[in-house]
Amino acid sequence: MPAIDNQAIDALAQGVLSGEVRSIARAITLVESRDPVRIELLTRLFPHTGRAFKLGITGAPGAGKSTLTYQLIPRLKAKGYRVGVLAVDPTSPFSGGAILGDRIRFDDALEGVYIRSLASRGSIGGLSRGVPPAVRVLEAAGYDLVLIETVGAGQLQVDVRFVADTVVLALVPEAGDVIQAMKAGIIEIADIYVVNKADREGATRMRLDLRNALELGGKSKGWNPPITLTEAINGKGVDELVEFIEEHKQYQQQSGGWRTRRLQQLEWELQSLIHDALEQQAHSVTRRLFSAETLEAVLQGTENPFPKLQEWMGS
Amino acid sequence: MPAIDNQAIDALAQGVLSGEVRSIARAITLVESRDPVRIELLTRLFPHTGRAFKLGITGAPGAGKSTLTYQLIPRLKAKGYRVGVLAVDPTSPFSGGAILGDRIRFDDALEGVYIRSLASRGSIGGLSRGVPPAVRVLEAAGYDLVLIETVGAGQLQVDVRFVADTVVLALVPEAGDVIQAMKAGIIEIADIYVVNKADREGATRMRLDLRNALELGGKSKGWNPPITLTEAINGKGVDELVEFIEEHKQYQQQSGGWRTRRLQQLEWELQSLIHDALEQQAHSVTRRLFSAETLEAVLQGTENPFPKLQEWMGS
Repeated sequence: MPAIDNQAIDALAQGVLSGEVRSIARAITLVESRDPVRIELLTRLFPHTGRAFKLGITGAPGAGKSTLTYQLIPRLKAKGYRVGVLAVDPTSPFSGGAILGDRIRFDDALEGVYIRSLASRGSIGGLSRGVPPAVRVLEAAGYDLVLIETVGAGQLQVDVRFVADTVVLALVPEAGDVIQAMKAGIIEIADIYVVNKADREGATRMRLDLRNALELGGKSKGWNPPITLTEAINGKGVDELVEFIEEHKQYQQQSGGWRTRRLQQLEWELQSLIHDALEQQAHSVTRRLFSAETLEAVLQGTENPFPKLQEWMGS
Repeated sequence: MPAIDNQAIDALAQGVLSGEVRSIARAITLVESRDPVRIELLTRLFPHTGRAFKLGITGAPGAGKSTLTYQLIPRLKAKGYRVGVLAVDPTSPFSGGAILGDRIRFDDALEGVYIRSLASRGSIGGLSRGVPPAVRVLEAAGYDLVLIETVGAGQLQVDVRFVADTVVLALVPEAGDVIQAMKAGIIEIADIYVVNKADREGATRMRLDLRNALELGGKSKGWNPPITLTEAINGKGVDELVEFIEEHKQYQQQSGGWRTRRLQQLEWELQSLIHDALEQQAHSVTRRLFSAETLEAVLQGTENPFPKLQEWMGS
């Protein structure tokens, strides 16, 4: 992307606001980047943002997140939502790139739906930091439901709480899956649980295990997270899932949980932007403190790098 | 842990150097933390570090990493190594915590082996930043082979390159696994590939797919990564794997690849420490720029937060 001046930013913002797909794409690329000019764009888009319902779908690879997403889309459209999808999952068929062996077809069900994959590589932990600004772009373009598909893996899965209003965790009935999820500390984060591929043996048992695990965690106050069985591949149970999603949305709006959560999201979003700016310094600070010669000396054990680091930290 | 003064740091360093297990445990807890005093400890340990061979084992959950690790340990001990294990994998049986359904027993095979799990939660991307300082603690305590088990998931899996001298990627013969790995961009990072659970159908086929995928990537210059079949559960193929590991180690030492890699590791280690220090600032900067009232106003759309952010970035 060439250097962008204020006039170009205005034009880009205008394109986003009128819902032009190419402008949306360019704008997301810009806000995903670390280019400081993205803040200019966000400044212009801000008055038109903050209104979409953000639905997170998470789960381990193979849990059927993409198929669920694909099944949810037409149902959410039928409820009157304009749907945008952000896939933060390198293995998602929505993520473009090398789409080998995917079963997802871009058919009528996806008409009018903006689908975009966000980079999951780059700097450490950059995985989902691109989400909040990308959501703002979609909001400014008139999308009022943003579905965020994220691959479930430890930290990354936990992060979804900071970007989504409602988190759906997809599991599959396989031995140890509940245990794995508990160990990874992700069992507590979902608002709705889906046991997908419910035609497989052990689905009912898994729901029971999950219910027990949740009760162990003492999650009974306030919202009691439903556990629903689906067969995403043929759409079975997805209507019920949509109802639970709407219910959770309403519950939060009525209970005031919405505001608390949105404040957390906002804080996380701003902190991430600040974090990004500071992170860019890490590289230059490293270079400044440790020259190639110094690194070589450290490697040979003739120079101890830590006192220099400590000096910098104290300064 | 109570506040630590210089005298306590000296005692802790002394304990590590004499190989006391409790001191090692406390020292790793300290260097894993963000306590600035950890730099003091690293300063003292540094002269006794930098000599261990760091072996990374990565792969998706269920690939059998822990079982492989368990099988590798006695064989590496037989080669004369003093082995330490760092598990950066919340689903690993080595990770302690709720160890339900684990098959790993702490028996003779693990005698004299220091095993430690590292936090995989905490701040974004913090996942493996604790590894390099924990390695230094183990080195100072006399361990000369540190086995690092990391769960494979996008970014996290890629990071293992920055902490390990030799990376073993474990895969299982299941449809799409090679493709998933390719999409996640992790196919290029390993030095040795293991098709584990090789008694399953499709193992030979997977080796072929993998070989083709690697050749596509043009990885033929220099080290040609071997692809070995194992059945970790009964130890089949693990002797061969050990030979490949030794071969790769020697190859790197002779080719000079070792030095390049270690320079990268060192740079990443120092940058991570700088990063951590800057990251701690992100929180306080956020608080300073955005009061609770401001956040509330932003949420209600009456205040645009981005100009303030831009001003800070420009300053």
